[in-house]
Amino acid sequence: MTAHAELTPSEAADRLAIRELFDAYAHCADRRDAEGQMALFTADSRFAVYMDGAQADVSYELQGRDALAPVFDDLNRYEATMHFNGQSTVTLDGDRATGESYTIAHHVFTENGTRKIMVAWLRYLDAFAKIDGAWYFAERKLILDWSETRSLGAPTPG
Amino acid sequence: MTAHAELTPSEAADRLAIRELFDAYAHCADRRDAEGQMALFTADSRFAVYMDGAQADVSYELQGRDALAPVFDDLNRYEATMHFNGQSTVTLDGDRATGESYTIAHHVFTENGTRKIMVAWLRYLDAFAKIDGAWYFAERKLILDWSETRSLGAPTPG
Amino acid sequence: MTAHAELTPSEAADRLAIRELFDAYAHCADRRDAEGQMALFTADSRFAVYMDGAQADVSYELQGRDALAPVFDDLNRYEATMHFNGQSTVTLDGDRATGESYTIAHHVFTENGTRKIMVAWLRYLDAFAKIDGAWYFAERKLILDWSETRSLGAPTPG
Repeated sequence: MTAHAELTPSEAADRLAIRELFDAYAHCADRRDAEGQMALFTADSRFAVYMDGAQADVSYELQGRDALAPVFDDLNRYEATMHFNGQSTVTLDGDRATGESYTIAHHVFTENGTRKIMVAWLRYLDAFAKIDGAWYFAERKLILDWSETRSLGAPTPG
Repeated sequence: MTAHAELTPSEAADRLAIRELFDAYAHCADRRDAEGQMALFTADSRFAVYMDGAQADVSYELQGRDALAPVFDDLNRYEATMHFNGQSTVTLDGDRATGESYTIAHHVFTENGTRKIMVAWLRYLDAFAKIDGAWYFAERKLILDWSETRSLGAPTPG
Repeated sequence: MTAHAELTPSEAADRLAIRELFDAYAHCADRRDAEGQMALFTADSRFAVYMDGAQADVSYELQGRDALAPVFDDLNRYEATMHFNGQSTVTLDGDRATGESYTIAHHVFTENGTRKIMVAWLRYLDAFAKIDGAWYFAERKLILDWSETRSLGAPTPG
């Protein structure tokens, strides 16, 4: 895992494109660009959510790009979100790739007059596909390791 | 956004340099190297702060590298800070580039005998310039999406 | 720090391998793969922990890869962990390299029936060595800038 002899210009390009795919998902989510977010997936992609960690059964599963619309639209109930991306480890295999990526997803909302934040510690286990030169999510497994909801308090000048 | 045919050695170098610029800003901030931090900016750079998210008006604006000194010196009132950097998506255009970068900035201080932490969830919308082979910030727009101040409690062994 | 003329295929490979080393440490820690985690270190590696920031004296120090086993095994007392990696700035020098890397390490546990999270804001000052084509940690200095323990509350659907 910690050895690479050479990184060819095309492998470097593939790695950059896949990292940008991961980051574009966050950008589209946070800017509420549900159409842009859907366009990052293959038409027949699979999206599986594990709400109780990786050991438990799948909580729900969506088949096909179009099934993602309500999931992404659901972000509109938040005043602000930040999908903060950490490490992403990718293994390339021609026009396919797999990866594990870490995200801490932050969701700000108001409930009974109190401003709150729900934070979700996530890992994505992804399969990527290269189609006509561009990379897409072919499969996303979203693992929720745990989450926390707390009062956010009054805004503070930064 | 998710397709790259090849990444040439010079484009790879530009991308690395810009990522290092982003990270050097955090390093200098956290180590209180205000001079080093200022040196990352062009002489005529513009620094604009949006305290109420990207939709609101600019809160204040600094023109020129020298105007940044008091902003960076202000970090000295904190006992510790960590500018934790997440994703950074950059578009190159010759000797210019633009990017969106995510940072969660943590600031530890003591108030009335209580140790506290102020956390700021930030996005930077940057313009970069390459001058004599080195990359600089030509413009930084700092968007504060929200912040939180909470008691930190007693230190715990890690 | 912000200038690179060209990134050769072999330098790009070294940088990728070192980033993967940093991320593999987190992966092995979070998946409780203590053997895999130890295999990332040279046989004579040094691991030094600074519990009170970088200015204070070293808190404890481990010499040699085998001494790491109890440290990594100790993670088993947590129900879940996430070593969330941010920026990593690396300087290459042939078969050696040094770097500064940011991690926010999250540890979930239950105490007296209450679910809690201990968060540690860390920086790693690393020395890397390339042996037979693969990169390893030759030295890790772990700087704990500060930590926080708080109640996590009941799990919330994400």
